[in-house]
Amino acid sequence: MKILHTADWHLGKMLEGYSRINEQREFINEFIEIVKRKNPDLIIIAGDIFDTYNPPSEAEYLFNYAIKNISEEGKRAVIIIAGNHDSPERLESIKPLANEFGVLIFGTPKSKTEYTYYKGFSVINSEESYIEILKDNEKAAIIALPYPSEKRLNEIFEKKINDKDFQKTYSERIGELFNNLSKKYFKKDTINILVSHFFVNGGSSTESERNIELGGIYTINPEHLPKNADYIALGHLHNQQKVSKHKNAFFSGSPIQYSKSESNHIKGVLFVEIQKNKKVNIEKIMLKNYKPIEIWKTNSIDEAINLCKKNSEKNVWAYLEIKTKNPLTGEEIKELKKYKKDLLEIKPIFTDILKEKTEQEFEKTYTDLELFKMYYKSINNIEPKNELVQTFLELINKVGE
Amino acid sequence: MKILHTADWHLGKMLEGYSRINEQREFINEFIEIVKRKNPDLIIIAGDIFDTYNPPSEAEYLFNYAIKNISEEGKRAVIIIAGNHDSPERLESIKPLANEFGVLIFGTPKSKTEYTYYKGFSVINSEESYIEILKDNEKAAIIALPYPSEKRLNEIFEKKINDKDFQKTYSERIGELFNNLSKKYFKKDTINILVSHFFVNGGSSTESERNIELGGIYTINPEHLPKNADYIALGHLHNQQKVSKHKNAFFSGSPIQYSKSESNHIKGVLFVEIQKNKKVNIEKIMLKNYKPIEIWKTNSIDEAINLCKKNSEKNVWAYLEIKTKNPLTGEEIKELKKYKKDLLEIKPIFTDILKEKTEQEFEKTYTDLELFKMYYKSINNIEPKNELVQTFLELINKVGE
Repeated sequence: MKILHTADWHLGKMLEGYSRINEQREFINEFIEIVKRKNPDLIIIAGDIFDTYNPPSEAEYLFNYAIKNISEEGKRAVIIIAGNHDSPERLESIKPLANEFGVLIFGTPKSKTEYTYYKGFSVINSEESYIEILKDNEKAAIIALPYPSEKRLNEIFEKKINDKDFQKTYSERIGELFNNLSKKYFKKDTINILVSHFFVNGGSSTESERNIELGGIYTINPEHLPKNADYIALGHLHNQQKVSKHKNAFFSGSPIQYSKSESNHIKGVLFVEIQKNKKVNIEKIMLKNYKPIEIWKTNSIDEAINLCKKNSEKNVWAYLEIKTKNPLTGEEIKELKKYKKDLLEIKPIFTDILKEKTEQEFEKTYTDLELFKMYYKSINNIEPKNELVQTFLELINKVGE
Repeated sequence: MKILHTADWHLGKMLEGYSRINEQREFINEFIEIVKRKNPDLIIIAGDIFDTYNPPSEAEYLFNYAIKNISEEGKRAVIIIAGNHDSPERLESIKPLANEFGVLIFGTPKSKTEYTYYKGFSVINSEESYIEILKDNEKAAIIALPYPSEKRLNEIFEKKINDKDFQKTYSERIGELFNNLSKKYFKKDTINILVSHFFVNGGSSTESERNIELGGIYTINPEHLPKNADYIALGHLHNQQKVSKHKNAFFSGSPIQYSKSESNHIKGVLFVEIQKNKKVNIEKIMLKNYKPIEIWKTNSIDEAINLCKKNSEKNVWAYLEIKTKNPLTGEEIKELKKYKKDLLEIKPIFTDILKEKTEQEFEKTYTDLELFKMYYKSINNIEPKNELVQTFLELINKVGE
């Protein structure tokens, strides 16, 4: 079975107030081309389709256009789960239409789909968070668990909750759920796939994943992922990566650089070939970088102006840093923006204050606690209370464990 | 050709903060039954599908469920235009999926659709605000003009605007547009249909149509409707009615009583049979009143409590009026609500102030001007200025013309 795995489209997402819809449209069209070229049996979109609960209508249009074109009217299965950014109800509102195209949407852990025969495949089994499909004599058992918030997790466990369960960690409870589901549905003659959306211990995160965890409570321990899955298709982390300590668990990453901290990422989707009892083959398909994010560091205002002039036609988003002794004048800012349209930020680095320390030196000089105190004071204008300092130290120690 | 005409669904609309989604679901299911029973060739939904630009997702689900079931996958054409309540962009965001079902959506006057062959009909021609369909050897030329705001009307006319055009009234400009479109597209061998959404002079309106006109500037004169249309399917007014002075122009009305002032309306949809050069046959199909709005007038608090007790199981929305000398106590209000759940408003009518005049007597005693002054004072706590009184009198005289 040939599977195309993507996630974290974040349709409608902005960058410093600038729309990314044109890049998103370019991605969708490139993705449609990849689908036609690779002809997968199954497409997985592992959450965060949209960036907000209430996406702009042009983002919704783009999504509908995408699923219409990649499903090719039921030629293949398209399995979509909600991420932490998606409204499960809004994502599922197109179910009456999408279902007809073989596009199967799981908004909450209680979502299920119906048995149907499509042009290219059949849904032969379906329960909450689970679906089994048949395509050209191959069967795939898919556990599809949309982003499980604490509230929704409680709903699943509501029938048998007791004091002992309450004391379990989030990760343990998710692990138990996976264990139950995989025992029940993963079989010897099926290709066994898990699709979900969360943070995994040890994953490399970036600025643009919304913080869904407080002190790591929503982080899943890789040990709690089902061991008998042939492939685990994850969403949430924007950096394409393999989950350590697990053979075939992957984050596909986002298709677009969504923040400054992603400016070095090479974005792509994953093409996975699975034959029962053979080695799983995973190919990374690189995507074009439609409009890269660049950080321009300059040593003077004149250098900055020259750089903007030189790159005025270059199709990039630019963050501009300028080392300077004096604040920038309105005239200077106007000139910079005149030469370079997509200037996201102009940041003066005052050399007198920093005494020309490099960022690295800066980090080396202070302890974590000092940095935390400085940060807290810069935001709140007062020193953090002793209680908070204690909590911070405990968390720091826990992370170090 | 058999046509089913409906409008003003206002999915997502509330009543005094109460959700109407259950009634709306009942309507959709009854409407699907009507479609299966009458088997129309064409369904027209003449605007105000949703109540707001950003409808709740359960309303969007209901709409998608409706169009999936009434189109029967392209068995018949479903033509939908945006009303003043709809976001044209949001309505059109499902076009990539809806088009496949033969559901053709016109969000703005510049919207067009594509030539396609469907299971039961074909789109054989299409331009901005126009479509021609072929079904069983019958051709229908349909001018579909979504709610034309002043801004969108200017966009249409932008190429040839001159001082003379600017001086024309809104109605004259819409009339000119209809004239051009109908001359171009209405033919002798086609069934000629106009679909639009606006207020027509002389129409009977209610509280729940949002005021889209200031001093009547967005009101269309019936003289400006195209004379060579076999049928004119309109949306906007919630009361089902024929447009005076025009043979076959109808408002289908809303399917649900959406305000207190609609509590006497019998709601329905229109079933229209048209054969070229024969009399048009129009049948009103009544809808169930899923949950009527009632106004309960009582002479004392005891009577009100008894009435609530007696009707506690009755599935209605109730506005309760109580004649009383004293304000209601918290205890009394609590008791009323305990007996009757869906009490939308509890309104004490203070008999001492009104001197127990009946409403009819009240209206008889005062002139329009006196009533206006009293109303103004009750709202603003001061007498209206002379200027405003003059404007009021001018408007009153105009209405009388």
